[in-house]
Amino acid sequence: MTDNSTASETRPLSATLGALRAALGEDSVRVGEQIGERAMTDWTRHAPTRPAALLLPRSTEQVAQALAICHAAYQPVVPQGGMTGLAGGAIARSTDIALSLERLSGVEEVDAASATLTVRAGTTLQAAQEAAADAGFELALDLGARGSCQIGGNLATNAGGNRVIQSGTARDQVLGLEVVLANGDVLTSLGKMVKNNTGYDLKHWFIGSEGTLGVITRAVLRLHPQRAARHTALVALDGYDAAVNLLRRLSTRFGNDIGAFEIMWPDFYDLGVSWTATARSPFADSHPLYALIEHASFDAGDDGGRFTAALTDALEAGAIRDAVIAQSVADARALWAIRECTAEFPARLDPVNFDVSLPIGEIGAFVDHCRAALDQRWPGNASYFFGHIGDSNLHVTVDGHSIPGVDHHAVYAFVYEMLRPLHGSVSAEHGIGLLKREFLPISRSPAELAAMAAIKHALDPHGILNPGKLF
Amino acid sequence: MTDNSTASETRPLSATLGALRAALGEDSVRVGEQIGERAMTDWTRHAPTRPAALLLPRSTEQVAQALAICHAAYQPVVPQGGMTGLAGGAIARSTDIALSLERLSGVEEVDAASATLTVRAGTTLQAAQEAAADAGFELALDLGARGSCQIGGNLATNAGGNRVIQSGTARDQVLGLEVVLANGDVLTSLGKMVKNNTGYDLKHWFIGSEGTLGVITRAVLRLHPQRAARHTALVALDGYDAAVNLLRRLSTRFGNDIGAFEIMWPDFYDLGVSWTATARSPFADSHPLYALIEHASFDAGDDGGRFTAALTDALEAGAIRDAVIAQSVADARALWAIRECTAEFPARLDPVNFDVSLPIGEIGAFVDHCRAALDQRWPGNASYFFGHIGDSNLHVTVDGHSIPGVDHHAVYAFVYEMLRPLHGSVSAEHGIGLLKREFLPISRSPAELAAMAAIKHALDPHGILNPGKLF
Repeated sequence: MTDNSTASETRPLSATLGALRAALGEDSVRVGEQIGERAMTDWTRHAPTRPAALLLPRSTEQVAQALAICHAAYQPVVPQGGMTGLAGGAIARSTDIALSLERLSGVEEVDAASATLTVRAGTTLQAAQEAAADAGFELALDLGARGSCQIGGNLATNAGGNRVIQSGTARDQVLGLEVVLANGDVLTSLGKMVKNNTGYDLKHWFIGSEGTLGVITRAVLRLHPQRAARHTALVALDGYDAAVNLLRRLSTRFGNDIGAFEIMWPDFYDLGVSWTATARSPFADSHPLYALIEHASFDAGDDGGRFTAALTDALEAGAIRDAVIAQSVADARALWAIRECTAEFPARLDPVNFDVSLPIGEIGAFVDHCRAALDQRWPGNASYFFGHIGDSNLHVTVDGHSIPGVDHHAVYAFVYEMLRPLHGSVSAEHGIGLLKREFLPISRSPAELAAMAAIKHALDPHGILNPGKLF
Repeated sequence: MTDNSTASETRPLSATLGALRAALGEDSVRVGEQIGERAMTDWTRHAPTRPAALLLPRSTEQVAQALAICHAAYQPVVPQGGMTGLAGGAIARSTDIALSLERLSGVEEVDAASATLTVRAGTTLQAAQEAAADAGFELALDLGARGSCQIGGNLATNAGGNRVIQSGTARDQVLGLEVVLANGDVLTSLGKMVKNNTGYDLKHWFIGSEGTLGVITRAVLRLHPQRAARHTALVALDGYDAAVNLLRRLSTRFGNDIGAFEIMWPDFYDLGVSWTATARSPFADSHPLYALIEHASFDAGDDGGRFTAALTDALEAGAIRDAVIAQSVADARALWAIRECTAEFPARLDPVNFDVSLPIGEIGAFVDHCRAALDQRWPGNASYFFGHIGDSNLHVTVDGHSIPGVDHHAVYAFVYEMLRPLHGSVSAEHGIGLLKREFLPISRSPAELAAMAAIKHALDPHGILNPGKLF
């Protein structure tokens, strides 16, 4: 890489803004009151901060020009997408320049032969999904924030979401990527090929790097055929081991036609049921654990008979306690409503949210241990456990209202520390961003952190890209 | 990363060998005649070269000690696995020290709950496959070299093979990785989690880097359920567009239960048929293109009826010209024998092999163009075209016997150059190694190559790991 800098230290902001205006045009460089609230915080509701400037480039070339200028001036830059992050990764400080990708928007191509979609970074996930669907395909990435989040942010954070058990994370959807490096060099690796062993696979450096190594401007995403039939069941289980066994039993029979395997412990399940319209569980009795399972088949003629037979077999074998199988879309929605009570967490609780991952076999014991430890530390706490166990992902929400006077940070530190001996991950899907930096060493060794720092320095020697995030 | 070096330039080899013997023991450091032929070349049959020494460490710690010593001495090190590479990536020069992983062998654990296998780098692929099968799972990585190639080499080269259309490349099988860096630092990222967004996903930096960034010592691999039923058909097609349409038609109906979609142009097909026991095509007529297709289902009760129905529908719709559906394992083997005539290429031809990739929609036109260009340049050449088009991977073999006096290198340069305007890849699965270095700029831009060099320098500042490969 060429070092385009001429300065050896930070330039005055006025000179940098002047150069940016000359390169991008007046209307692409906003300051002060011209900067709307959108650029000031994200879904973490972190204290809003107005960045020193907001850039709105219209093309990859303009992104490259902007970064070259900021690189030369040692000027920190914070890439911004849909601002739906849950770790503060796109929040700018008052001395940072925010770089919004929102004008780099639109699907450039759907290639049916390759089953790929080429999209600009500022396109919303929903717009990309719709373009795929219009061409008869499915984009196998889906999040609650789909209407607001942008593809660039999805890839920069390696978003997870609702389809991971079936099709992997955002990373697994990417065939090609265009990235602008800190110094303005453009890496255009927009290949549509599944196989390509020509040197380092550069796209993987940037996916999940939270904007600290480069700015993603375009991507080629893999498309999947649409699944033609979906069947949903709610299953009652003896406990965690039974859930893992059921997951293996169904995977053996259906492979990745199992499209959801959501586990709910009774605390969560009872809360979810109580918030539904009927406030009644479809089961007469209480059970130690519940699983919401979706079977999604490519076979339009699949009437759910094979899925029902598999659950019946499991019931007869004593592998499950009971099952309710949705007979209609309305039935399926009613079952999903229990799991989706999380949408109301921000309004009805004071949620302290955890998004951790552990080996699948260890999640059950961790939940027991974590609950006991929370009860001992804060008697009377209300905590809810649920997860995508097929993805090794556990969510825990502690309701701050139940432990008045306890700072959220104390709860974070207490729960994350329990992951250390288990080599668990403090972030399964949300990322590290600003909010989990201090906990990163729980999941990463000093040697790993040193290697990350070496790579960061190699690709961003002036340290301008999203400083203060991750590290 | 700490720079452990004390020297600022190359040390005498004798001092380095002395330090290595002290650290690893006498029997782990071989020189001269003690070094067997195995360490001297690979499946490329490149001129055998005896390295300056061969190291046979017994543990990750010993690999770390060896690299720390070589790093301090600026001593080049060439990691070696099963020596089955097809690009010369593991061939050492006479001044290099070869580091064999063969003593780091064995499957450490199969975790049924996580569906993972933890394996040491020197384990053969076949041994890992067998451990997976013994536990009721399938390791979705399979190559012809399975009995000799090692997991470490498979991952260092991001091997492809027979299951890519269904389960991806070697990269897609990896959940965790342990790597020793050039300076001896050990990165142990052996997590079993599907989701883990805690900083850079370090495993992806090393997978496919051909031993130039670190030495892989252990891995956690993802396991899949075993597929219970397989059905095979040979299909005759109107041409390339019909093949792409059939692939989409079958994918829409069966998703990734399509386990093979191998395309054979008539030159290749006729050769393959002529080498079978009967030397007869199952079709009475000749056709413009042939596809060998496998349907692999998790459903043990699947009798192939749905697959047959899909092909019948395609026939009625005019989407295919004809089909032969295997009715027995022997039938299926006979069909596969046509495709697997490639095993006899080294004995019966003087093969100049290409392993390129292109967007799926462009492969047909490329084949036509390439054939015409070859015929114009070398009239009378015998060239064979076939590929895994679901993986965007085309193989071309030119028989050197048909163009006497023409240097292989001239053929390589001629064909690779045709990929440049199409942004094709000069290596879909075999890698760059020693043999394709000069062609790498056809597939990678100067900015990409510069970024690769920056990362190489960051992780291996003394340039000791596999020098002369890739770059």
